[in-house]
Amino acid sequence: MNGAELLVKTASAAGVETCFSNPGTTELPVVAALDSMPGIRAVLGLFEGVCAGAADGYGRMSDKPALILLHLGPGLSNGLANLHNAKRARTPVFNVIGEHASWHRASDAPLTMDIEALATTVSGWQCTCESTASLSRNTADAIAAAMKGQISTLIVPHDHQWTECSDANITVPQFSCREIDQASIDEAARLLRTHGKALLLLGGKALRKAGLQAGARLAAATGCDVLSERVFARMERGPGVPLVGRLSYFPEHVLATLSKYELVVLAGAKEPVAFFGYKDMPSLLLTANQRIFPVGGENQNLPEVLECLADALGAPPYDALENPSSEKSGKTEVPSGPLNGEKASMVLAMLQPEGAIIVDESITTAATYYPLAATAGPHSLLTLTGGAIGQGMPCAAGAALACPDRPVINFQADGSAMYSLQALWTQARESLDVTTMICSNRKYNILRLELARSGNVPPGKNALSLTDLADPPIDWVKISQGMGVPAVSVDTAERLAKELLKALAEPGPHLIEMVL
Amino acid sequence: MNGAELLVKTASAAGVETCFSNPGTTELPVVAALDSMPGIRAVLGLFEGVCAGAADGYGRMSDKPALILLHLGPGLSNGLANLHNAKRARTPVFNVIGEHASWHRASDAPLTMDIEALATTVSGWQCTCESTASLSRNTADAIAAAMKGQISTLIVPHDHQWTECSDANITVPQFSCREIDQASIDEAARLLRTHGKALLLLGGKALRKAGLQAGARLAAATGCDVLSERVFARMERGPGVPLVGRLSYFPEHVLATLSKYELVVLAGAKEPVAFFGYKDMPSLLLTANQRIFPVGGENQNLPEVLECLADALGAPPYDALENPSSEKSGKTEVPSGPLNGEKASMVLAMLQPEGAIIVDESITTAATYYPLAATAGPHSLLTLTGGAIGQGMPCAAGAALACPDRPVINFQADGSAMYSLQALWTQARESLDVTTMICSNRKYNILRLELARSGNVPPGKNALSLTDLADPPIDWVKISQGMGVPAVSVDTAERLAKELLKALAEPGPHLIEMVL
Repeated sequence: MNGAELLVKTASAAGVETCFSNPGTTELPVVAALDSMPGIRAVLGLFEGVCAGAADGYGRMSDKPALILLHLGPGLSNGLANLHNAKRARTPVFNVIGEHASWHRASDAPLTMDIEALATTVSGWQCTCESTASLSRNTADAIAAAMKGQISTLIVPHDHQWTECSDANITVPQFSCREIDQASIDEAARLLRTHGKALLLLGGKALRKAGLQAGARLAAATGCDVLSERVFARMERGPGVPLVGRLSYFPEHVLATLSKYELVVLAGAKEPVAFFGYKDMPSLLLTANQRIFPVGGENQNLPEVLECLADALGAPPYDALENPSSEKSGKTEVPSGPLNGEKASMVLAMLQPEGAIIVDESITTAATYYPLAATAGPHSLLTLTGGAIGQGMPCAAGAALACPDRPVINFQADGSAMYSLQALWTQARESLDVTTMICSNRKYNILRLELARSGNVPPGKNALSLTDLADPPIDWVKISQGMGVPAVSVDTAERLAKELLKALAEPGPHLIEMVL
Repeated sequence: MNGAELLVKTASAAGVETCFSNPGTTELPVVAALDSMPGIRAVLGLFEGVCAGAADGYGRMSDKPALILLHLGPGLSNGLANLHNAKRARTPVFNVIGEHASWHRASDAPLTMDIEALATTVSGWQCTCESTASLSRNTADAIAAAMKGQISTLIVPHDHQWTECSDANITVPQFSCREIDQASIDEAARLLRTHGKALLLLGGKALRKAGLQAGARLAAATGCDVLSERVFARMERGPGVPLVGRLSYFPEHVLATLSKYELVVLAGAKEPVAFFGYKDMPSLLLTANQRIFPVGGENQNLPEVLECLADALGAPPYDALENPSSEKSGKTEVPSGPLNGEKASMVLAMLQPEGAIIVDESITTAATYYPLAATAGPHSLLTLTGGAIGQGMPCAAGAALACPDRPVINFQADGSAMYSLQALWTQARESLDVTTMICSNRKYNILRLELARSGNVPPGKNALSLTDLADPPIDWVKISQGMGVPAVSVDTAERLAKELLKALAEPGPHLIEMVL
């Protein structure tokens, strides 16, 4: 058995089933090992950003790491932006980079880059393999580290992959959640009892069904409010899952929301900060007068932590609560007429099928989708966690591979879509049930808003040019068809509804260009 | 004047005329300054890899830096692969990254990355601006450093851009070539006189017309051979420019070529190394028995160095030599029948117009183009210097912006094209005279060759899947039209010839899908 086979066999024994890759010469032994050591399915992305984004979507939905196999420094570079999003989503990812043969690196061949420096920017765990003999151990350590909700990067020199290893023991990674910290729960309970108006701010795995239900119990017991972070890896929604509001995007709105709380309990959420620094606006959106208390630190089972806290406060069981998710929005008619962001959001919220996975990278268009979908059937909502645009289409592909029985709908801004449009090809090759709804507003609208906020009204010629996508207009139907994904263009709400139902009824990927 | 305006005014005073960008919120003051301080034209790329590749092409053709304006760590990440190619091409690039406001960085907002760690992997000069007052000086230093043939990265916190500066002095960068090192020339002359068979290996600016002519004088005077590096930023070719052979790609071929030389004089070239490490094959392709001598170190004018060396050896003037570029290949008929790589190369070599800029990222398809084009009219040939694929289409866009009066032809592999296909949109928006010839062989052919070399014959299912682009086939005509570039598909040599002439006769970009 050679080193590459050790790596693949160890990963397979650890439960890794999917490899997203765009390999090169220095990864070919691993590519060959994917055939000689069966168990891992290889999925080709035509750009590494697709592989990284797909691994993010896969990991969010399956709670286990996919293997990403990337080529040297340039391949890793191309994957970094979506690895950054995965890092911010705390997605488990097993990231393998082929490096030049150990004795070749010093020659500074054309493709040589400082892979280690690149990897440090996204990795929670990182190692450069020092010999074939250590490859199974390195792989097991990497996967165990990834299971903690981070990116593990294993850099494997080419020669360590191809070298035969006589003592080929397979190491199986060990992973378990940390025990719940009862002292922290007791203190949180005390604070919730003794403070005035309190907020429970949820993020991460606290946004799964059991976490949200425990949050509702806490609200019932203590009168606290429950909100979620603005962006999150995955939120479960639908009947039986309590509704939670989300923090806003602009810091002045978040400040207004948060100002009324004396106590903020963080569960899986970070202390709220502004996306960007603005003149005369703070970075941190809570003040020194507000008590902040985190529960359920690293690797604790967050829903269980929240249940313990609810129990400690004598909260009634969830089933005894009036289910706030049963509220109806009142809007039941499919909208009509020329399409806009709100109508697109209404159509999606009304027509999305049970069990859908909604990947929302709509940026400015779908502002109203989140409240509208409150009364939809059960679904998972995935958002852009790291702000690095170009995550939606690959993430949708990865989610579909993780959950082949669930329909995936990608509500996708056009400017962001152009960043990783190659994902459409992977959706076609793998016959994935992904329906992409392109919000074709033909501009970087968020930047137009930010230009106006900073006083550039009207924007000048260069500012207009750098935020405009209308000249030439992007024809998403042709681009999509060019990569093997059937596509149509719509400009009315009725037409969108009709085409969305049609796309959802047919297997395989579809794209709907929504001209807004 | 605010910091952003200081930056733009300084860059403009230093001769910077073009800015390739995909900005975000933290670059908006610079975007606004591009309007308030006229002189720099903003060009939008729909992905940062396009901006970086375009700056590379622009810098290779204009010998001066373009400004690249990128958004935070994710924007820089997306540009890294083509910045790596630019670094290996020794292209001058002025790379500006907006960073969070200085006081906002510590809050670890979602888009926060370690920009400095990322930038070190490609930058020859790097600085994080510490105040608005230093921005003009920082900009001048960055541009002076870039002029040495490297990437200068200036990281500018958002607040330093928007802050007003009362003492707004503009610093003008100073740059000059280093004086020629006469002692080194004398030693090279002595070695060439006293050693046996010698090779003059050219790279960098030694491949401009004057450098190649001086090389021919040296060959005439000493009997040395003259070759060029395998990959290079830009080579001038055509009547009046001596022909030079290129080193091969695979190391066994390079070893066979180089083994006969006792002395290798490097002018702008690095010591030859293998692209990859292979079993039983060295990294360095010259042995300890072979004397290596570099002339014209950092920032010396290489053609002038070679002329001095030729003079020192009493070489005849170039005009007195029999011009080796006037040899004819003998093939003058346009080929016919089903298209293949050789026929595509013949058609291009025969029909490329005078003054053409040929951007060759054809990887395996155009193996025969280089010798065939030896008898073509005057042209510049640009190749993939860093091995990071996805350089051709953006580089062609940048070259066209640098040289609006010259036709650009991009001989482009399909797998590599998919990496940065967004460049087509920029070609359309800017009405650039770029004709893209897509080599649609629908596979990563270089990896198939490498799999065979490493004994994976026949490749297994995963290996085939990871190197195959045929399922679904990519329809380049639709993709190109979808981004506003007129396109046709051809599968015979006659049809290619007809469509190439048509595309060259019409202004603006065109794409020809060559089904191989």
